[in-house]
Amino acid sequence: MERKHTVTFQPEGLRVEVSEDDNLLTASRRCGVQIESLCGGRGSCGKCLVRIESGEATKPTRFEAQALSGAEMGSGVRLACQTCPISDLTVRVLASPRVPGSKILTWGLELKVKPDPYVKTVSKELPKPTLRDQRSDAERLRSALKQSSIDLLLLRQLPRLLREKDWKITATLYGREVVDVGGLDAGGAYGAAVDVGTTTIVVYLVDLASGKVMAVESDYNAQIPYGEDVISRIAYSTREKDGLATLQRLAIGTINKLLDEASKKANVEKGRIYDVVCSGNTIMLSFLLGMDPSFIATAPYVPPDTGSIAVKAREMGIDTNPGGYLRTVPSISGYVGADVVSDVLVSGMHKKEAVSLLIDIGTNGEVVVGNKHKMLSASCAAGPALEGAEITFGMRGMEGAIEKVAINPESLEVFYKTIGGAKPKGICGSGLVDALASLAMAGLVDSTGKLTEKARQGQGFVLAKAEETEIGKDITITQKDVRNLQLAKAAIFTGCYLLMKKMRIKPEGVKNVYVAGAFGNYIDPTSAIVIGMLPDVPVERIKMIGNGAGFGARLALLSKGKTKEAQSVARKIKYLELSGEEGFQKEFLKALNIPHAERNLFPTADRIIGSRGKEHPFMRWNQSGKNINYS
Amino acid sequence: MERKHTVTFQPEGLRVEVSEDDNLLTASRRCGVQIESLCGGRGSCGKCLVRIESGEATKPTRFEAQALSGAEMGSGVRLACQTCPISDLTVRVLASPRVPGSKILTWGLELKVKPDPYVKTVSKELPKPTLRDQRSDAERLRSALKQSSIDLLLLRQLPRLLREKDWKITATLYGREVVDVGGLDAGGAYGAAVDVGTTTIVVYLVDLASGKVMAVESDYNAQIPYGEDVISRIAYSTREKDGLATLQRLAIGTINKLLDEASKKANVEKGRIYDVVCSGNTIMLSFLLGMDPSFIATAPYVPPDTGSIAVKAREMGIDTNPGGYLRTVPSISGYVGADVVSDVLVSGMHKKEAVSLLIDIGTNGEVVVGNKHKMLSASCAAGPALEGAEITFGMRGMEGAIEKVAINPESLEVFYKTIGGAKPKGICGSGLVDALASLAMAGLVDSTGKLTEKARQGQGFVLAKAEETEIGKDITITQKDVRNLQLAKAAIFTGCYLLMKKMRIKPEGVKNVYVAGAFGNYIDPTSAIVIGMLPDVPVERIKMIGNGAGFGARLALLSKGKTKEAQSVARKIKYLELSGEEGFQKEFLKALNIPHAERNLFPTADRIIGSRGKEHPFMRWNQSGKNINYS
Repeated sequence: MERKHTVTFQPEGLRVEVSEDDNLLTASRRCGVQIESLCGGRGSCGKCLVRIESGEATKPTRFEAQALSGAEMGSGVRLACQTCPISDLTVRVLASPRVPGSKILTWGLELKVKPDPYVKTVSKELPKPTLRDQRSDAERLRSALKQSSIDLLLLRQLPRLLREKDWKITATLYGREVVDVGGLDAGGAYGAAVDVGTTTIVVYLVDLASGKVMAVESDYNAQIPYGEDVISRIAYSTREKDGLATLQRLAIGTINKLLDEASKKANVEKGRIYDVVCSGNTIMLSFLLGMDPSFIATAPYVPPDTGSIAVKAREMGIDTNPGGYLRTVPSISGYVGADVVSDVLVSGMHKKEAVSLLIDIGTNGEVVVGNKHKMLSASCAAGPALEGAEITFGMRGMEGAIEKVAINPESLEVFYKTIGGAKPKGICGSGLVDALASLAMAGLVDSTGKLTEKARQGQGFVLAKAEETEIGKDITITQKDVRNLQLAKAAIFTGCYLLMKKMRIKPEGVKNVYVAGAFGNYIDPTSAIVIGMLPDVPVERIKMIGNGAGFGARLALLSKGKTKEAQSVARKIKYLELSGEEGFQKEFLKALNIPHAERNLFPTADRIIGSRGKEHPFMRWNQSGKNINYS
Repeated sequence: MERKHTVTFQPEGLRVEVSEDDNLLTASRRCGVQIESLCGGRGSCGKCLVRIESGEATKPTRFEAQALSGAEMGSGVRLACQTCPISDLTVRVLASPRVPGSKILTWGLELKVKPDPYVKTVSKELPKPTLRDQRSDAERLRSALKQSSIDLLLLRQLPRLLREKDWKITATLYGREVVDVGGLDAGGAYGAAVDVGTTTIVVYLVDLASGKVMAVESDYNAQIPYGEDVISRIAYSTREKDGLATLQRLAIGTINKLLDEASKKANVEKGRIYDVVCSGNTIMLSFLLGMDPSFIATAPYVPPDTGSIAVKAREMGIDTNPGGYLRTVPSISGYVGADVVSDVLVSGMHKKEAVSLLIDIGTNGEVVVGNKHKMLSASCAAGPALEGAEITFGMRGMEGAIEKVAINPESLEVFYKTIGGAKPKGICGSGLVDALASLAMAGLVDSTGKLTEKARQGQGFVLAKAEETEIGKDITITQKDVRNLQLAKAAIFTGCYLLMKKMRIKPEGVKNVYVAGAFGNYIDPTSAIVIGMLPDVPVERIKMIGNGAGFGARLALLSKGKTKEAQSVARKIKYLELSGEEGFQKEFLKALNIPHAERNLFPTADRIIGSRGKEHPFMRWNQSGKNINYS
């Protein structure tokens, strides 16, 4: 019989009986105790701090070793999500400490767009009504502004507003609709571009007249506790009553919080924000709009809507001017979303004669190939390995994550660089790509991905020794880690390859490779080619476009023309369902090799591996064997 | 010092101290006791029944004599609005009895319009999605229906709905927007035309495919307790916090109640009602939409908006399909509203070459003169006399109201007809017009409106003797009553006359006189000419158009073309502010005479009065002196 224990949470004194498999975060939710958790119980956010006051619990995990100081561990502090009861427990909920600065990508290609937003302000003095000019207030306003409609909420207050301001007004227009009326001193009009990511949400507060970004704020998506990835969130939304409404509320809550922070930082009144343009994957935007995305999860993977949707801010519960709008960048399919349309918009590939390849790497990889005449897209199930999940010492791109790796092929000495220069706690995506490339170049892993004899040092190849790490343990790359990385990189390359094949384009015909997304922004392009993740093109053709979703949303926010461009891009890009493609499995198997089973597809990668990294720009060693880039 | 008394309301046991001038309805409101009142405390609705259990109160009024049976009076039953305390009182609130059947005008000119409504249903079988056809649910629906947009609430449920119905659907469209999706058995689409009157609200439930009226329901406007007329309601809305919101809620509450009753009667699901078209005066429609109409009350009398406004039913709180709309017929000015635009629409005068005159008589009279090329409108402050207010024995057109009167000029015998054939309780508008005409024709009132010697019988001329009335008192017309009627009829005629003058049209040039509104529907046209209220045209040119507001709303509901016609009518009709017109006062004074100081303006009326009624179609007497129409 399963053993049950009673957990008492202080200071509330709430009790719940749980089994030995239930962690304290789960237990807290069951009895209604509020413990903050941003990572959904993965052990990575370090928010869910508790102190064991009495009773026995399971041993600390490596996540706790990363998140907690020695002093904390000594005094019984634990992460609730990592701790299960062994006996009855009394537990005190602690205030959350600062989350170590996480790298959230807010950077993007510099925008070159002349502001021509939907929102404009016009200052006017209206003729006062007389017995000879008894036009209605609305008609007077419409004809003075040459506009056709007035927001209903505004209309309701218009008589009072016009007289309070003595007919001297600044009107704010959204397209051809008057949405606000203030005095001549009303101030400017602002908008927000929002990247609604599965993990993080980024808000850019923008002055719509100048296009200037006034503030950028980002945070974890408050939906995370209800599922780490989109599929588990869909499962939650269909399983739980009001699940969809809950997820919608949480996303809107995060956006409202960030709008609040950004407007405070920039000293902008929230009532002067009139346009909120959201980009993100199709499932995130469906949740945001309250549309049921559940049929994306099963074949034939049909989304509720891919169009660009505009809704009054007040109908969405978005805390901006109630007459303003929230609108979305359009999507292409259930798995190629508005984020990819945004990437394309930022890259400009839809306006070039030359053929480009665009890759957005996250939990899913999305790929677009084409030029101004024709574009084809696909989604590849890369899995979360490149985000650090399912990797023994994997972690997100946070302080202490190894983000760059080089291995001296002679001495097998390892050189690494961590985020923030801190003692290493684990390894993030860009570090993993470097590590696999380095292992290959040093002959520590063969072309099938097998760790060679000399690479095996206990659990696997050691990147950082216990004494130099924050966690007091060796940070290693295991055989299983390599296998997971192979699956991820093969998925991405197969997507690129099949699209190029469909378009009858060879790698050398690809003139630009745009890499978008948080992960893509930090990887070393040569390492990515060496492991066979990106096609073998001259490295200078590879361009990072940063947070394409956020920057595409900014373009749509700032320019009616760019909004229309996004719509035409979304219509123009066709979607190819890879799972329905003949030969997908065969190509995927070939792509598992490092760099690839068809060697002629990767001449450069082959040459770099053959030269033991001498042609890799970062694998340069000085006379004493130190890497000249990282040491 | 003012004397105060304590009133205790049972069964609640709530107490309040009031002065001797406060009636019990006022007292009940002050301490939060709910007593139903539809007429705003005028004594006419008979709803506010209480029983005096102990203490002394003022004597019963004539309104109570009309509303209560002898048995009720004997047992201490009173109308709260008519009763003031003389000592401390204990009062029991009684359930409201049936209001005696009130004549609410729901009739109108027969509609001749081919249904072409905004709302249509389309049944389709959609192609099911496959891996080769992964279009979004929304895109699939839009392209099958060739429509451009989908209601957001519908969109949110679309994935589930389409699969539940196995892609065999009936879609309901509103213009180019899809607002509902059901199975092939979803049923028809319905709409409602609503006459939002200051006193009564009438709802017509209409099958939009056939144009058939499925049910008509009417009731008092629940706003009445907050002011009998529009001006006192405006005063309430500006004086009280949330006053505007309260009035809006009450109007919507009445409409929802009537929609509920009508849909039950017709066995129509409320969720199948998609379009609610409202007509009424500018102030009523402003309240309905929650727009502040207060500046209509003071010069220069500017309304918030006169345009046609469409709002999602759910945003209005209208209890129909949430994706449907409530919309308004457009207005002309603050005092010439959508009801008059509706009247014009029903009359068809805007499409005729011949010049027409349209008069809508209520508390205010509105007048339109013109033809298809040019139309001019005005509002005349007729006052409430023609609705029975400010007349000694005046009452609304309810059971027991004298609605027709004839006086034998020889014998001075009076013949009358009451509504419902009941014993008379008072006299309503059409009876008053007949009475004044009869008095004039019998020489009982002279051309200045002075009752002659032989007409004076105590309080005034007796229409019905005490022994034959329900109230046990003589029902008379007093000198003051005649003065009030003169003021009313002069206001209306002056409006007609000044507009005709402005348009350079003489009475004989008016080919059609349309009379709209409840009162207008029942008056005798000859009597109206005899007293000089309507211009002296051949009586066959006078046409009653019934409830023009309701019927115009029905036209707009049934036909996109008629909706556009209403908008063009509203734009085309210019408004003339009579108070700003030179000569208004002079003309008004001349119009006070019976029929008019300028005798040549009323040759027919003059001749009829001169002939002592012999040319009046209803003043025909048999040999024994009985009126052949009424006896």
